[in-house]
Amino acid sequence: MNPEPFLQLDRVIHEKGRLPIMALLAAAPQLSFTEMRDTLKMTDGNLTAHVRTLHEAGYVSVTKAFQGGRPLTTYSLTKQGRKVFTSYIDLLEQIVQQSKGK
Amino acid sequence: MNPEPFLQLDRVIHEKGRLPIMALLAAAPQLSFTEMRDTLKMTDGNLTAHVRTLHEAGYVSVTKAFQGGRPLTTYSLTKQGRKVFTSYIDLLEQIVQQSKGK
Repeated sequence: MNPEPFLQLDRVIHEKGRLPIMALLAAAPQLSFTEMRDTLKMTDGNLTAHVRTLHEAGYVSVTKAFQGGRPLTTYSLTKQGRKVFTSYIDLLEQIVQQSKGK
Repeated sequence: MNPEPFLQLDRVIHEKGRLPIMALLAAAPQLSFTEMRDTLKMTDGNLTAHVRTLHEAGYVSVTKAFQGGRPLTTYSLTKQGRKVFTSYIDLLEQIVQQSKGK
């Protein structure tokens, strides 16, 4: 077994609660807090904490705007976030292939 | 995006330090502590702690024997450990496929 792909996994993304947030944002240009919470079935507190960590890592950007006179906050992957997520998924693919003997 | 495979990830296996231990043991009938440590480039303390958690979860069995008059401890996946690891890798594969749009 080659341990390299395991060693290279980004801990910020690998966390079970943060991985689906990255995957969800990778599949959309941007999403609101409510859209993310409803898709991921997370509590407000959990989602807030994980998004903050991803933001502090430079992987997620936060945009505050107004829509119909009400504040709307949207989230999207930064260029760096998209890059590290692609690398992370490539490592997962290597791990799956190794483990399935491909 | 379907969040189910993310939600189903086994936290005991998903931890970055434990995942390569499970993958290594899945690829061999049994291994000694030294063999695992050298392949995974882990410290004794780290490996000991992770193996203990996997043992307590019922995923890894520990066998103590003598070889040439010296004690030899070997580790292997239990039947349950092999089953949960296979399920975990199947989930990773679904996550990779979703993320690559396959």
